[in-house]
Amino acid sequence: MSTRDKRAATREKLVEAATKRITDDGLASLRARDLAADVGCAVGSIYTIFKDLEALVLEVNSATFRDLGAHVTAAVKAQPADAYEAQLVAMGQAYAGFARLHPNRWSAVFNVEMSNAAAVPEWYNEQVKQLFMIIAVPLAALRRDLDEADVRLLTRGLFAGVHGIVLLSVEDRISAVPTDDVPRVIELLVGSAVHPPV
Amino acid sequence: MSTRDKRAATREKLVEAATKRITDDGLASLRARDLAADVGCAVGSIYTIFKDLEALVLEVNSATFRDLGAHVTAAVKAQPADAYEAQLVAMGQAYAGFARLHPNRWSAVFNVEMSNAAAVPEWYNEQVKQLFMIIAVPLAALRRDLDEADVRLLTRGLFAGVHGIVLLSVEDRISAVPTDDVPRVIELLVGSAVHPPV
Repeated sequence: MSTRDKRAATREKLVEAATKRITDDGLASLRARDLAADVGCAVGSIYTIFKDLEALVLEVNSATFRDLGAHVTAAVKAQPADAYEAQLVAMGQAYAGFARLHPNRWSAVFNVEMSNAAAVPEWYNEQVKQLFMIIAVPLAALRRDLDEADVRLLTRGLFAGVHGIVLLSVEDRISAVPTDDVPRVIELLVGSAVHPPV
Repeated sequence: MSTRDKRAATREKLVEAATKRITDDGLASLRARDLAADVGCAVGSIYTIFKDLEALVLEVNSATFRDLGAHVTAAVKAQPADAYEAQLVAMGQAYAGFARLHPNRWSAVFNVEMSNAAAVPEWYNEQVKQLFMIIAVPLAALRRDLDEADVRLLTRGLFAGVHGIVLLSVEDRISAVPTDDVPRVIELLVGSAVHPPV
């Protein structure tokens, strides 16, 4: 194997090992020395491939975004093509389901420390933007009373709103919606917010 | 001072010291030995007064609930008495303002570890319930299409929704609403959700 191939192979093994450790134990216990042991390289090698451990976590999160996108899109596709409200509700409920199924991968998306927002690579921001588009498209069709800027803001608002419901529930906070009621609460919140107020 | 008075005085000093430390440095760095040093008692004394450090944090959070309730209620009172929608929007925006003003006290409310949900004292749950009532009363007036159970669920949903918006913003997450847009996003989300869908 050429040096370049070896490096690519080590990179791939590191992403795999980090995915496994995050999935099993959560982001908080991710350590470079454990990853080095997992793939059989020196700790220093990690930092010749990735700027820091956060950059490696972004790779793991990228796959989580892909899986989350696929999970949510499948739920949308199960609804009739023009049933935008049902699609948005299904999307929120699928998001809740994904968080329950993959709590550690899901929370790594929100807990990766970005020491400097400017350091977030463009491809990562682009992936986040694509996920928001899944919400924005049907929302724009329903909320013709809003201009483009407000559709963008309500898209973020609906996402953050559903995220808040899911987060308090997954973390079992005192103020949380009981787990069994989460789908109905998402239906109530999303189902109301997608209608122009009269 | 009687033993009982001394104990009450130490208790009060511990709550004060914990409030100061949580306010300044956040819950995560709260240590029993620092509190003991702050009030000039033995570490063991803390545990003759409080079951554990979490029980002490609940006392700190209780004052945060009072202040949060007062802050939100003031924003509601600034609206006309029958302007329920404006009241609910103002409430959400006041919540966001409180979190920005008191980030560490606010996050202690959500980050106190409850090793056992059954161990949460009744008075604490009662205080949380009272805060939810501030939302539920105007919401019930606006959403006469919903039965009592759904009003209760949408109350939690609106709270968690606004909480999610505020949390992602305060923690400066990639998926967050930009800080300056938070009031408008809350207005869009809450303002839409309080109308019965047509």
